[in-house]
Amino acid sequence: MSVMLYEGKAKRIYETDEPGVLRVVYKDDATAFNGEKKEVLQGKGKLNNEISSRLFQQLKAHGVDSHFVSQVSELEQLVRSVDIIPLEVVVRNIACGSLVKRTGMERGTKLAAPIVEFYYKDDALGDPLVNRSHIQAMHLAEEAEVNQLQEKALRVNEVLVPYFAERGVDLVDFKLEFGRTAEGTILLADEISPDTCRFWDQASGESLDKDLFRFSSGNLQEGYAQLLERLT
Amino acid sequence: MSVMLYEGKAKRIYETDEPGVLRVVYKDDATAFNGEKKEVLQGKGKLNNEISSRLFQQLKAHGVDSHFVSQVSELEQLVRSVDIIPLEVVVRNIACGSLVKRTGMERGTKLAAPIVEFYYKDDALGDPLVNRSHIQAMHLAEEAEVNQLQEKALRVNEVLVPYFAERGVDLVDFKLEFGRTAEGTILLADEISPDTCRFWDQASGESLDKDLFRFSSGNLQEGYAQLLERLT
Repeated sequence: MSVMLYEGKAKRIYETDEPGVLRVVYKDDATAFNGEKKEVLQGKGKLNNEISSRLFQQLKAHGVDSHFVSQVSELEQLVRSVDIIPLEVVVRNIACGSLVKRTGMERGTKLAAPIVEFYYKDDALGDPLVNRSHIQAMHLAEEAEVNQLQEKALRVNEVLVPYFAERGVDLVDFKLEFGRTAEGTILLADEISPDTCRFWDQASGESLDKDLFRFSSGNLQEGYAQLLERLT
Repeated sequence: MSVMLYEGKAKRIYETDEPGVLRVVYKDDATAFNGEKKEVLQGKGKLNNEISSRLFQQLKAHGVDSHFVSQVSELEQLVRSVDIIPLEVVVRNIACGSLVKRTGMERGTKLAAPIVEFYYKDDALGDPLVNRSHIQAMHLAEEAEVNQLQEKALRVNEVLVPYFAERGVDLVDFKLEFGRTAEGTILLADEISPDTCRFWDQASGESLDKDLFRFSSGNLQEGYAQLLERLT
């Protein structure tokens, strides 16, 4: 039995025998609104592992490295061990969710250029929006690292927007996390899945992401499965 | 009788006979928490007009231009007419107020470098924090203008921090507004007063600003008068 290092809302992380490599196990737990809404949705973990593995591979093929090493089972990935930077990096192509609440922009507005936002990962504070001077004052990342986070996040967007568009899906927005390797290199980490992205079917406008659960607007597993189908 | 162009929470603005020049009349109204708390505090308008006039003159003497033309009476200033940019530019030297709520930093923490924040001036949205990509997406100001706002705000801070320190007062944080002249020059505008700054007496730690009203922690007029006394 390997030692569990961390249990998050959607994944458990275990040690492996290989130094610097961890095993991620995707859970079926769905949470929203900072953990206020919770449910176990059979099959979600498997779908997210499949989708996230494919997306990390797709990014790799376009020169974007991540912590992803390999998918080893229905629920498991091997990943490189990194120290997670406590920032959520959000990229937005279409106005939705908290952007609409914050700015009063109309939901569905296509942005002329992507919006990049940094949120401080802190459940107790409700993951607040922060700017670069907050990040410096809180010593969350060096200024040069923040530039890298922004560049890498925009690069991920450049790869994934056309990838999904070719499959009839709008990549509305997504959240990335990054970590530092032992050598100090910044690597894309966490997951890229319908839990962390908004996907809209271009034909129907329907959500194929966690909004199905957030707003009880449809069957989450069916939406995720439909998204996975587009990728295969 | 001159035409009133605008009535805000703390000031009324009138036309004058001189093109491009407006008359500002400071009111005794105090508001806080986005207008939820309201009171008329006799003498506040006069104190803010006196303090703001002195601070604009002080800044001018250090090469920082503003819309301020002259103080013409106890309650009145003449100012240059500008189109206000709908951003509140906040500079912070010591953690207090919403920064503490947002980041969990301890109140009173001295910041190694000033924090600069931009808030979208919109009462209905609660004046939300925005970042540079929001400002671009909402067409609130050009990128080069945002750079200017940041530089000018930091320059104001550089002038005012030692000015107040010499008078036994910590400039904790403050909010600035800027406007565009007809020629497109960006000018510091609005007011700089205990309504828009936090001032802490260095000896006692007491607030000499609107927190006296916000938190009913003391007599506002006495605090403002004490601050004005330090400047004279």
